[in-house]
Amino acid sequence: MSNAPVELTSQDLHAILTFTTRLARKAGDLILEGSAAVQSASSESDVNEKKNSVDLVTEYDVRVEELVKKEIKEQFPTFDFIGEESYAAGARPPLTDAPTFCVDPIDGTTNFIHGFPFVCISLGLIYKRRPVLGVIYNPFLDHLYTGIKGQGSFLTRGVSAQPVRLPLTGSPKPLPSLSQALIAIEWGSDRVEKTINAKSSSFSRLAGDPARGVQGGRMAHSLRSMGSAALNFALVAQGGLDLYWEIGCWPWDVCAGIVIAEEAGGVVTGSHDAAITSLDKDFGDVTEEILTGRKYIVVRAIGDTPMESGKEAQKRIVKEFYDSVEDVEPN
Amino acid sequence: MSNAPVELTSQDLHAILTFTTRLARKAGDLILEGSAAVQSASSESDVNEKKNSVDLVTEYDVRVEELVKKEIKEQFPTFDFIGEESYAAGARPPLTDAPTFCVDPIDGTTNFIHGFPFVCISLGLIYKRRPVLGVIYNPFLDHLYTGIKGQGSFLTRGVSAQPVRLPLTGSPKPLPSLSQALIAIEWGSDRVEKTINAKSSSFSRLAGDPARGVQGGRMAHSLRSMGSAALNFALVAQGGLDLYWEIGCWPWDVCAGIVIAEEAGGVVTGSHDAAITSLDKDFGDVTEEILTGRKYIVVRAIGDTPMESGKEAQKRIVKEFYDSVEDVEPN
Repeated sequence: MSNAPVELTSQDLHAILTFTTRLARKAGDLILEGSAAVQSASSESDVNEKKNSVDLVTEYDVRVEELVKKEIKEQFPTFDFIGEESYAAGARPPLTDAPTFCVDPIDGTTNFIHGFPFVCISLGLIYKRRPVLGVIYNPFLDHLYTGIKGQGSFLTRGVSAQPVRLPLTGSPKPLPSLSQALIAIEWGSDRVEKTINAKSSSFSRLAGDPARGVQGGRMAHSLRSMGSAALNFALVAQGGLDLYWEIGCWPWDVCAGIVIAEEAGGVVTGSHDAAITSLDKDFGDVTEEILTGRKYIVVRAIGDTPMESGKEAQKRIVKEFYDSVEDVEPN
Repeated sequence: MSNAPVELTSQDLHAILTFTTRLARKAGDLILEGSAAVQSASSESDVNEKKNSVDLVTEYDVRVEELVKKEIKEQFPTFDFIGEESYAAGARPPLTDAPTFCVDPIDGTTNFIHGFPFVCISLGLIYKRRPVLGVIYNPFLDHLYTGIKGQGSFLTRGVSAQPVRLPLTGSPKPLPSLSQALIAIEWGSDRVEKTINAKSSSFSRLAGDPARGVQGGRMAHSLRSMGSAALNFALVAQGGLDLYWEIGCWPWDVCAGIVIAEEAGGVVTGSHDAAITSLDKDFGDVTEEILTGRKYIVVRAIGDTPMESGKEAQKRIVKEFYDSVEDVEPN
């Protein structure tokens, strides 16, 4: 495969998955080394911390990305690559039909800096403008999530363990309403008044009891914030979270997670407008517009009931959710 | 030790820790069995869910508590026991000087129900009215936290692994201000308007950028919500979180975590008033009033700097924190 085929076969995708999984574990070792170095340095350092407190980047972020790019270049020289620096110039290069790795070397950078063990590398592959393959690896917990479009997604816990198909429940659970849901939300890095106010009132409506004074309250089971978009997608795929909503993250944060969630029966769509428009047509088709739109919602697989199909239930949940939260433009 | 000694020696505490650790792992197996049963049942069940969506309890919560009580009764018949049902009648029985187990059989019940792998058993021992021993075990990740007063606290990852002393960094990191902090907060189960408004405006101030319109904003690195008080304490002990603030949980949620956090160099105190009053005297002494006060703040170990001791830094952080958030009475 040193000359990438224009048409990727199922066999090609399996070979790419083997490569990508090995690469994720190798990157994971570097992430662990980096975490130890960062923790050790921070415990010795002076209190003079000059960096922006939210938007910290580290040497290891670059080192992991270099490792990943180098290995991809060697193995798949004709493949494209999208990462943080692809957008650095501002304008977004449009997707092509070529196989394109879409990679976040360290997802959960704030966690990484703090030694909070919810950090991963996220390696996605886009082909013909759609995410088709994803690998997410958290080296701190040794949790490996993998998926290939049309072939299911899996969680492997421990290096010698057997992959378990997602969702972990086998047949998917029902989800009558948001009041039964465990929902992932994130505070993000955009902390201006407008964004913070919109988020906190959205979160309050999701959590609040409509019978005890919270107008529009949904009284969700609870809200979770783990600080890694990729792992939030993975936890929705697994069935441990019912829904994850995000504004402001990037294609490389979600590309691998989209495949893993979809292959576990989950549905992914975009902003309020994109999602509502899609309810009648192409619901769950992650178009280029949605993939690069920086607004995402993912709902786990929902079981069919005598009253409605799982797909109809997912539409209902997406609609109920977007009726409950405020939109805001990402910075 | 079938007749509990009035004076517990260091050797006694070690024997109790061995017993408690074994019990925690045994309970962990039951929790995993329960989780599988709950997940399996929920994926087969009808959409008719009649229980209150936040305050769900399960058969396994009772079974784990019964297992724990039975084994404690056999091994330490003279020890007292505090758990959820101790407070069921309303009035709180005062603590005695006797050794008293203070146990949450399943901490993170909502996570347990959803299959979100952040669930633990929390086993604390109170002696002479102070927490003196703690064991927290998350069977989903196989993370075991242990601590004995005056003898350090430890994390064991995997059954055959060596315990690693906490905090994981060895020498503690500095913490210049809340703007450098990763803070755990929880939405809790009290969803009335007043509580939700107080919490969401507190969270907004912690996250918001004071230079971009958020009055009183602290621009913390970020906020995390994992849904288990005991594991939040453990993560503060570990050094992965800088601070955890909670209103509304109970002594059995925090008793083990208090010992584990303190033995890792962390400081635990109570409500705004209790904490501020203690700044000049007995800061960090978890009195009966604080242990049973249902308001807690725990700050990780902070390294000494040329400018101030770690203890002074912890006082400064507690003060900065309580200047930033609104108090509210737990339901």
